Amino acid sequence: VPLSRAVRCICIEISSRPFNPKALEKLEIIRPSQSCPRVEIIAQMKKSKEKRCLNPESETIKKLLKAVSKKRSKRTP
Amino acid sequence: VPLSRAVRCICIEISSRPFNPKALEKLEIIRPSQSCPRVEIIAQMKKSKEKRCLNPESETIKKLLKAVSKKRSKRTP
Repeated sequence: VPLSRAVRCICIEISSRPFNPKALEKLEIIRPSQSCPRVEIIAQMKKSKEKRCLNPESETIKKLLKAVSKKRSKRTP
Repeated sequence: VPLSRAVRCICIEISSRPFNPKALEKLEIIRPSQSCPRVEIIAQMKKSKEKRCLNPESETIKKLLKAVSKKRSKRTP
């Protein structure tokens, strides 16, 4: 008999407060798994070290993720 | 007199080995800061829990990051 699996998502609440992308230190992206069925995005703020769950669908996230892969190509001439 | 700052990047070596994006559990994106001048992308593998530094410029990363913000919009009709 298989044991029932507990859902253990990290994010309980998704923040919709706007934030300054420059205040961001780290972004964690956790893929859907057996413990949590959805993508989770956790942002850590630079000064406060506060962690905040973000909506993967939000425009801010889309822009941030685009910026990550663009950043270095600007450096190469 | 300002003290010299030590560079403390997390990634020493960037992996160029191809990998299956489905084997990925977590992706950490760390923005450039005073301790490290470049974007760092650290991937954690699902089974081995092995951590690997990836090149933000690579096609795999670009595709992965795109997939993150696309995933949920597929679910909404």
